[in-house]
Formats: sequence, structure tokens, C-alpha cells
Amino acid sequence: MSNVEVLPLLEPAGAEAVAPCCPPLSERPFTAEEAERTARMFKALGDPVRLRLFSLVASHEGGEACVCDISDVGVSQPTVSHHLKKLREAGLLTSERRGTWVYYRVEPSVVAALGGLLSAKN
Amino acid sequence: MSNVEVLPLLEPAGAEAVAPCCPPLSERPFTAEEAERTARMFKALGDPVRLRLFSLVASHEGGEACVCDISDVGVSQPTVSHHLKKLREAGLLTSERRGTWVYYRVEPSVVAALGGLLSAKN
Repeated sequence: MSNVEVLPLLEPAGAEAVAPCCPPLSERPFTAEEAERTARMFKALGDPVRLRLFSLVASHEGGEACVCDISDVGVSQPTVSHHLKKLREAGLLTSERRGTWVYYRVEPSVVAALGGLLSAKN
Repeated sequence: MSNVEVLPLLEPAGAEAVAPCCPPLSERPFTAEEAERTARMFKALGDPVRLRLFSLVASHEGGEACVCDISDVGVSQPTVSHHLKKLREAGLLTSERRGTWVYYRVEPSVVAALGGLLSAKN
């Protein structure tokens, strides 16, 4: 659990083999494998409902939220759960079950690395 | 052309009503409208071929590339053109026809704003 170093390759505990891996997109052309890994994360944020849910979790008090905290995005609770699971599978959120509810939390290192891909190369 | 100010709302010339608009995702929950606008850009990067093409254009000599420069992503030239058009429609690339070819260029302000969404709120 403590062997995460400050390296381009981040492997957050709990993420399912998805991690930002790569230099800024403007540094050199991505390989097929790099693009495959990274596109999964952008795709997860490429849905309006998922993006709202992500911002809701990211900005929620204490940095975490469960389905029980989410009521105003215009979709059913099962749909909310489905989208939160997708965000977790993409490595952007981690989850922890406590009692009845699963709590979701943003994985800051993964989000920062994803943001880093969009930075200028200089 | 010169009325672009340093504001959260960026309106790049040529982008089709798509522009980053919003604070970092961790600052407050996105509204439905904000999520709709922003998800389009993430979605455009959420495809492995498009992501490779984007990094290819972004890292190409002179900061621009045309279909004629792209030969090694494993898809046909019409498919390359299709994906470049999608990236342009999302506001991430701008394009200019010169002679036979359309040249694509990264829209740096849009990409930087998209990266800013993934930055921490502090």
C-alpha cells in the first residue's frame, strides 16, 4: 500500500488496472497501448451525468459521497450507482462500503495525472 | 478575433459553440448545462484512436498536422479525417484548408482550460 512513488506510472490501490501512464499529450504521439489506457479515463468523464456525479463527489463535504447524498441529478438511484461504478472502474474514484452504503472518493493522484496530460510540454 | 479575454469562458474562433466554462471539478457540483458542454470535450478524447491523433497533432513539428502526415495509427485515411473532424467539433482542434489538405492545430487555450478542470481547487 505504501509503495506508490512519484512516478509517471501511478497505481492507485483499488483501481482496476487503469492508471495514467504518459507524458503530456503534446510531447510525443501516444502509442496504441498508452492511448487505450488513457482514453478509458477520458471516456468515463465524457458523459454529462457521470461528469456531474464526479464533480459532486469531488466537491462534497469531506471529499466523499455516497448514493444517499445524491438526489438532484435527474436520474434514478440505480443509474447513479451504475455511473459511480463506471467512474471507479476507470480509476477516477475509489469506493468503500460502510454499513448500508458505498462511499466514493476521488483518487487525487489519478485526476492530477490526467490533468497533467493536458498540460503544455514546456 | 482579438476580443478574447483571460476569462473562465473561452470562445475560440472556429469552435462550434464548445468551450470550457467551469471551475475545477472539485470546487462545486457542475450544473447540467456545464456538464453537457464539458463532457463533449472529454468524450472526444475518450476514444483511443482520437487520443492518438490528438497527441500526434499536438506533438507534430510546427504544432500542426494534416491527414497527409498521419500514416501509422492503423486506420484508413477517411477514418483519420472523421476523427480529426470530431476533435475539431469538440473545440480541441482548429483547422485550416491549404491547397489539397486540411491542417489541424491544437487549440491551446481550450486544452489548458480542460486541464484546469482537473486541477485541485486549492
